[in-house]
Amino acid sequence: MQKTTNDELRRPTPEEFAAQAKLPLTVVLDNVRSANNTGAFFRTGDAFGIERIVLCGITATPPSREIHKSALGAELTVAWDYEAETTAAVVRLREAGYTVLAVEQVREAVSLERLDLSGFGQPGRRFALVFGNEVEGVGQAVVDLCHGAIEIPQVGTKHSLNVAVSGGMVLWEFFKRLR
Amino acid sequence: MQKTTNDELRRPTPEEFAAQAKLPLTVVLDNVRSANNTGAFFRTGDAFGIERIVLCGITATPPSREIHKSALGAELTVAWDYEAETTAAVVRLREAGYTVLAVEQVREAVSLERLDLSGFGQPGRRFALVFGNEVEGVGQAVVDLCHGAIEIPQVGTKHSLNVAVSGGMVLWEFFKRLR
Repeated sequence: MQKTTNDELRRPTPEEFAAQAKLPLTVVLDNVRSANNTGAFFRTGDAFGIERIVLCGITATPPSREIHKSALGAELTVAWDYEAETTAAVVRLREAGYTVLAVEQVREAVSLERLDLSGFGQPGRRFALVFGNEVEGVGQAVVDLCHGAIEIPQVGTKHSLNVAVSGGMVLWEFFKRLR
Repeated sequence: MQKTTNDELRRPTPEEFAAQAKLPLTVVLDNVRSANNTGAFFRTGDAFGIERIVLCGITATPPSREIHKSALGAELTVAWDYEAETTAAVVRLREAGYTVLAVEQVREAVSLERLDLSGFGQPGRRFALVFGNEVEGVGQAVVDLCHGAIEIPQVGTKHSLNVAVSGGMVLWEFFKRLR
């Protein structure tokens, strides 16, 4: 087997990427502490062509050397904005018609394994996924404002995943279903 | 919605975890540069109850402060060993009956979206997934020894994902199918 060359990858230029239709999906980062994790979300967001990232609270914002390093520059291709209060970001998204889902261990959460997007409404629906702080997770006041929650089933001793890794898993499932 | 309490998570103790049946899946890290990425693989490996991680070449090994920090201690629950040459690790796994797959952009790769494990043989088959260096990916000599390759489809300008994030996506797909 031969590894693919860079030419064969046919990557869009930033201009071509900007003109591409985006996945109807916005990511909300609720007080993510590590700029490396934030940068990884930009990188994954670029890979899957998501609409936007909303950086909230203490979450670092570009320009940031750490974000740039882990995003490989994807913070320049993925749209983003900043909101001081995550609750305000969620309210704004709800008012704009988004289905807002927390990725969090919540009693009423749907397992990522059994995620059925058709249950969330009509075609054309746009989604927002909220990921939380590395220690505290998504804040309870934010969870209270979400339409639902998604949980990643686990069998280990920690019952905990790196937030950028869990972001990869959940964004992958949405990319598969929505693109 | 109420966040789940730690008690409700019913996490196994390290002893209970050690006694659990494991996913028939080994992860091979081919010269992964960042101990943070290696630690994240331990954390994901704990979450999904994988069999083992084989750390190869320049990949950091426990005890390591950086691994410990990003693994949250999961390097103590997930079995691991070290092999100086990744090719030797792959040969050993092949000889032990594993189906060895590189996670890499390879011309003949199967898209993660179309992954069909039944195509890889009989029930009871065990898998090894090889993840590569942050810059070079999985080495060509290692790719040459694998039974096949898996590629994560992407639409972005970078066509590149953090190795621990791509590990999350691929391990999640195997966890769903094999557990």
